[in-house]
Amino acid sequence: MLLQRSTWPEVEAYLQQSDGIIIPIGSTEQHGPTGLIGTDAICAEAIAQGVADRTQALVGPTINVGMALHHLGFPGSVSLRPSTLLQVIVDYLSSLAQHGFRHFYFINGHGGNIATVRAAFAEFYAVAGDRRCPEPDRLRCHLANWFMVPAVTKLARELYGDEEGSHATPSEVALTQFIYPDSIKTAPLTVEVHSSHAIYAADDFRRRYPDGRMGSNPALATPEHGQQFYESAVAELSQSYQAFLAAD
Amino acid sequence: MLLQRSTWPEVEAYLQQSDGIIIPIGSTEQHGPTGLIGTDAICAEAIAQGVADRTQALVGPTINVGMALHHLGFPGSVSLRPSTLLQVIVDYLSSLAQHGFRHFYFINGHGGNIATVRAAFAEFYAVAGDRRCPEPDRLRCHLANWFMVPAVTKLARELYGDEEGSHATPSEVALTQFIYPDSIKTAPLTVEVHSSHAIYAADDFRRRYPDGRMGSNPALATPEHGQQFYESAVAELSQSYQAFLAAD
Amino acid sequence: MLLQRSTWPEVEAYLQQSDGIIIPIGSTEQHGPTGLIGTDAICAEAIAQGVADRTQALVGPTINVGMALHHLGFPGSVSLRPSTLLQVIVDYLSSLAQHGFRHFYFINGHGGNIATVRAAFAEFYAVAGDRRCPEPDRLRCHLANWFMVPAVTKLARELYGDEEGSHATPSEVALTQFIYPDSIKTAPLTVEVHSSHAIYAADDFRRRYPDGRMGSNPALATPEHGQQFYESAVAELSQSYQAFLAAD
Amino acid sequence: MLLQRSTWPEVEAYLQQSDGIIIPIGSTEQHGPTGLIGTDAICAEAIAQGVADRTQALVGPTINVGMALHHLGFPGSVSLRPSTLLQVIVDYLSSLAQHGFRHFYFINGHGGNIATVRAAFAEFYAVAGDRRCPEPDRLRCHLANWFMVPAVTKLARELYGDEEGSHATPSEVALTQFIYPDSIKTAPLTVEVHSSHAIYAADDFRRRYPDGRMGSNPALATPEHGQQFYESAVAELSQSYQAFLAAD
Amino acid sequence: MLLQRSTWPEVEAYLQQSDGIIIPIGSTEQHGPTGLIGTDAICAEAIAQGVADRTQALVGPTINVGMALHHLGFPGSVSLRPSTLLQVIVDYLSSLAQHGFRHFYFINGHGGNIATVRAAFAEFYAVAGDRRCPEPDRLRCHLANWFMVPAVTKLARELYGDEEGSHATPSEVALTQFIYPDSIKTAPLTVEVHSSHAIYAADDFRRRYPDGRMGSNPALATPEHGQQFYESAVAELSQSYQAFLAAD
Amino acid sequence: MLLQRSTWPEVEAYLQQSDGIIIPIGSTEQHGPTGLIGTDAICAEAIAQGVADRTQALVGPTINVGMALHHLGFPGSVSLRPSTLLQVIVDYLSSLAQHGFRHFYFINGHGGNIATVRAAFAEFYAVAGDRRCPEPDRLRCHLANWFMVPAVTKLARELYGDEEGSHATPSEVALTQFIYPDSIKTAPLTVEVHSSHAIYAADDFRRRYPDGRMGSNPALATPEHGQQFYESAVAELSQSYQAFLAAD
Ligand code: NI
Ligand code: NI
Ligand code: NI
Ligand code: NI
Ligand code: NI
Ligand code: NI
Repeated sequence: MLLQRSTWPEVEAYLQQSDGIIIPIGSTEQHGPTGLIGTDAICAEAIAQGVADRTQALVGPTINVGMALHHLGFPGSVSLRPSTLLQVIVDYLSSLAQHGFRHFYFINGHGGNIATVRAAFAEFYAVAGDRRCPEPDRLRCHLANWFMVPAVTKLARELYGDEEGSHATPSEVALTQFIYPDSIKTAPLTVEVHSSHAIYAADDFRRRYPDGRMGSNPALATPEHGQQFYESAVAELSQSYQAFLAAD
Repeated sequence: MLLQRSTWPEVEAYLQQSDGIIIPIGSTEQHGPTGLIGTDAICAEAIAQGVADRTQALVGPTINVGMALHHLGFPGSVSLRPSTLLQVIVDYLSSLAQHGFRHFYFINGHGGNIATVRAAFAEFYAVAGDRRCPEPDRLRCHLANWFMVPAVTKLARELYGDEEGSHATPSEVALTQFIYPDSIKTAPLTVEVHSSHAIYAADDFRRRYPDGRMGSNPALATPEHGQQFYESAVAELSQSYQAFLAAD
Repeated sequence: MLLQRSTWPEVEAYLQQSDGIIIPIGSTEQHGPTGLIGTDAICAEAIAQGVADRTQALVGPTINVGMALHHLGFPGSVSLRPSTLLQVIVDYLSSLAQHGFRHFYFINGHGGNIATVRAAFAEFYAVAGDRRCPEPDRLRCHLANWFMVPAVTKLARELYGDEEGSHATPSEVALTQFIYPDSIKTAPLTVEVHSSHAIYAADDFRRRYPDGRMGSNPALATPEHGQQFYESAVAELSQSYQAFLAAD
Repeated sequence: MLLQRSTWPEVEAYLQQSDGIIIPIGSTEQHGPTGLIGTDAICAEAIAQGVADRTQALVGPTINVGMALHHLGFPGSVSLRPSTLLQVIVDYLSSLAQHGFRHFYFINGHGGNIATVRAAFAEFYAVAGDRRCPEPDRLRCHLANWFMVPAVTKLARELYGDEEGSHATPSEVALTQFIYPDSIKTAPLTVEVHSSHAIYAADDFRRRYPDGRMGSNPALATPEHGQQFYESAVAELSQSYQAFLAAD
Repeated sequence: MLLQRSTWPEVEAYLQQSDGIIIPIGSTEQHGPTGLIGTDAICAEAIAQGVADRTQALVGPTINVGMALHHLGFPGSVSLRPSTLLQVIVDYLSSLAQHGFRHFYFINGHGGNIATVRAAFAEFYAVAGDRRCPEPDRLRCHLANWFMVPAVTKLARELYGDEEGSHATPSEVALTQFIYPDSIKTAPLTVEVHSSHAIYAADDFRRRYPDGRMGSNPALATPEHGQQFYESAVAELSQSYQAFLAAD
Repeated sequence: MLLQRSTWPEVEAYLQQSDGIIIPIGSTEQHGPTGLIGTDAICAEAIAQGVADRTQALVGPTINVGMALHHLGFPGSVSLRPSTLLQVIVDYLSSLAQHGFRHFYFINGHGGNIATVRAAFAEFYAVAGDRRCPEPDRLRCHLANWFMVPAVTKLARELYGDEEGSHATPSEVALTQFIYPDSIKTAPLTVEVHSSHAIYAADDFRRRYPDGRMGSNPALATPEHGQQFYESAVAELSQSYQAFLAAD
């Protein structure tokens, strides 16, 4: 059930059954010569909808611009500053908390978001009361990174070994190929990729990773792999979401 | 051409041809008993893609949560505070301006966004230089509200007369029906609707407009109407976008 | 009744009669070779006092520096950033709302303020409760632009036709001549003025409008015209203010 | 020379002679049963104009709402939060610094502003460069509190002794009587005034100083005294301003 | 070499040798019935000094109040909001970057800081250029959490097994006992401790962990253990710091 | 009693006896060729602990980075911007106010902090209620500058006369020599020192005061003097703190 395609009376009815919501968060950033700039948002959104279908959950609108300052050396990358993204999340959650939502389950597609999202959760718990949300001490947020789910990392290791890398990975590229088979890109991947994971300023990033990839070989990706990743992630995150709702 | 489904080398190539980008901005807010909560984002995004198809333009990711504080009395509405939305827009545009984009054409689906978007444009022009964007004095932003386009308001008047109203209008509902024919909702529209347009705090809004509609009768909407609105808006905004690029 | 020349017991007594206040907002910005830099603040303040005289209303201190970033290419222009002006308005209104004021009627002299003022109203309604203002859902703000009042625009059209332009207009210059007859300036208006209304960054503005005027011929202004504008605006805004107070 | 009543070419010409500007800053706050709410702004503005007349200086628009949070327990008091006032000052000064102004001389009418103004100066020096003001290391700000000028405090002591107090003082009331002889207020001053100077929260302030006065007897004020204060302050601050401009 | 006990010429000389600095960051928060409120700052500071001694590095002043909002249910806990801590770090690093420091190595004593510190690093890289730091693309930050160092976690597992827990742990308590042997506290640890790690709002935290411990038995701590932890952490982090400086 | 070396039950017990806390605030900034960069924090902290010992008071963690923007021209100086420091203080005090602390006594070692600290106090009183601190109208803050205490300034005058100066003074250097006798620095003080006190931007500061001293001769300092200063300050501030607690 998508919030964007629901009416407010439907949400009102939903709140009788559940106080949980799934919020996809991605990014808009270069993903190497062949990866889609929206990869992280596309993946998070698709998996979130898959989880919601399985669990009868509501999915909020995708936060599609995240924290990708280090990718700004590549054209088309768009980023919020951490201080901005933090406020976005606080406003988003405060809105819903006023209606009685209490369990906020983020499905995230981008490692660069993790720190800011976690910081925002902490700020939200403190601010919710200032903003007169009901029962602020009962609010709970959870961040699930689909690409770190054990079933996903296991599959990636089996399929790609070391060539999975850490950015513009074949696993995420495969998933976008499965979701948008008409948007499969090819390009020569001739630049030698580096596998170090240190990330500093945007210009430094581009110098280290000249075509945007970090130790990855996205040419290994196939839509069929993408489907496998999709199914693995949806299955595992559906259980995780239900455990989150059920937990004390 | 969607930024989210492009690669960075594709964007780099695009910038050889054009320094313009279309940015859809909507909202996540109640639209009466039958309107979709994502109506404003859905409409803006679809029209933006239509305009981009006609004009070979690039479309950025949709800003799907806007300024809808006055709708927070209805469950499922989500809003940024104006001060937050302003920063979001500044960050978004600053990112692109660093890559050489200069013409930012917003297609907006929500009246409540107008003030904050315009304020953000002014802030952006001043801040762009601080953030070392190249040639800040050559940056240009334009806000186009699809629902205010003459061809659209004329059509709405013809089809619905006074029953168009000003929120949860049959025109925007028709457009979502055309875009998502599987998400057409029905519900009794028995509450007497008020047609005053004054908008204050969220609780006041709900008291004045108990089911969320403002003077509108969305039961008049049909998907066929929606297609007409879509085509009218796309045609007119395509011309507007090209004029914006061509202007001195 | 001017807040600045009242005592607190007088304000306390006033609040027994009315919960309304008029707030003039202007700008400090170039107005062409002959227009006063304070034009927008001077006009808004004078008209506000005129309205207050007619309606027994209280007038707050003038917000005399507004949003004029696009005029900063001309010496003497002073501007708040939109994000700052927004906070100024929120603080201003929050202070008064704590005392029981509920109807805030802004009389504005500057088009560049409109977006930020409206954004600030929305922020204020949300923030007022966080700041423990009594009955935040009963707070109401209204923005009246004296230069857009029908009686004023009609008069300007009659007197000046196309030479009214849109900045450093003869109508506003006339009004300042009426208010400060000792400050009437003359200068050759030889630069060809442009009538396009597009406004972007400050440097771009100065390039387009080299002497600061936008399509206007302020040489047509006379103090007598100014008096007519004053009386038209005061009459019409007095009715508007009373309607605002009386409205449901 | 008032900035508000000048044109931009006049300011351009002024900058050939001087890079100094005088900025009055006051407050909008209760001043006891008989003091005007605008006292601090009125006094600062009048004295600033007097100084400017003597020194051929330019006077910027008055910052008429200052930091008066502790007075908010009395109706009609309006305050910016310190964090807001700080930004107002930074924006104000940054605007002028872009035009070549370098000496900013504040004439202040309110003790409660001092801390925030000084903090803002420090922030401004650091921020001016970020905002691309020319030669940020040559910017200089000075805060002059008219009520602390030796000639003024000496006169107050002679005229009023201990009854000068520290808020709603006869000296500032006298000055407003001189400036606005039509706005002289009378009221019984029967509440016992306290002379402690500790200031904490607004409610605490009202409890300590129930009619708003702090150890003062404003009934001693006369317009003639006001003139003396005016002339003393103008004379001394004129010298101070010129010394500020001349200093290395 | 402690920055606080050095002179600026000493720092100037140091910068000839190295552009690295170690910055301890802790927290001020409850650590169960027997743990010191300053535990996290005390440990980070001591280890940072140990590392600096070994590596001839400079140590900056300790950030002793961190992100501990979830501990605010216990008296004496002090926290910055994430949005505040982020700005603190950005200001701290911007100051040093202006002097030529480029390698910023944080030694952290508190898990709750991690997200905000990482978010701050990203903000810093972007903001450093706006603030005119030299060569912003060469700035590098690293976050080292002493309690996650392999040698430390191995030792904790050996000494305490499951009783290490995750807050108010015997390892950190032991380290403070080693550092401040005069401040060893004893108290009955009778409350049943919970070992779940979910952390939400402050009130929720106190309900879950009524005496502040999270699954830990700090009664196992001894000063001798503390010395072992100290030496393990210092050895391993010294290598890590040197590798950070040496890295490409 | 140091908060950092106490447990939360000890703080809980303390609150039964007292609602006061002493908060040292210093700075991290150049103090001339021989003064320690941490001088202001070191002095404030030592004196605060001395006062606390005498008065059985609790001492919070030292705010060791303050407002020293004007010193940033010298390597090793670290500063918060005033807007950041203000938020730090508000967060710090809000945390403690939630536990029942009501009297906040700052012992300050740096003149540059005064304005921002006072501004922060005003902001705190207003914000405390928004953040749901209990009884916000009973919160009280006091700023005590140890170097301005009569006993201290008298002693400095006696010992050093005009050579006390106003920055990197022999009195504060003496105090650090008493506290850290192993960190006594010597260097030739050959640069002619200027005694003007005007402070503007950082680059201007360095130009005026090329070795960082402002009219001072720290070579006069001795550890014995330092002890005298320490004892004078502790004695006088202990009385002041007790008077603050006892006051109505
Ligand atoms: Ni990705
Ligand atoms: Ni809509
Ligand atoms: Ni105007
Ligand atoms: Ni006053
Ligand atoms: Ni800890
Ligand atoms: Ni000092």
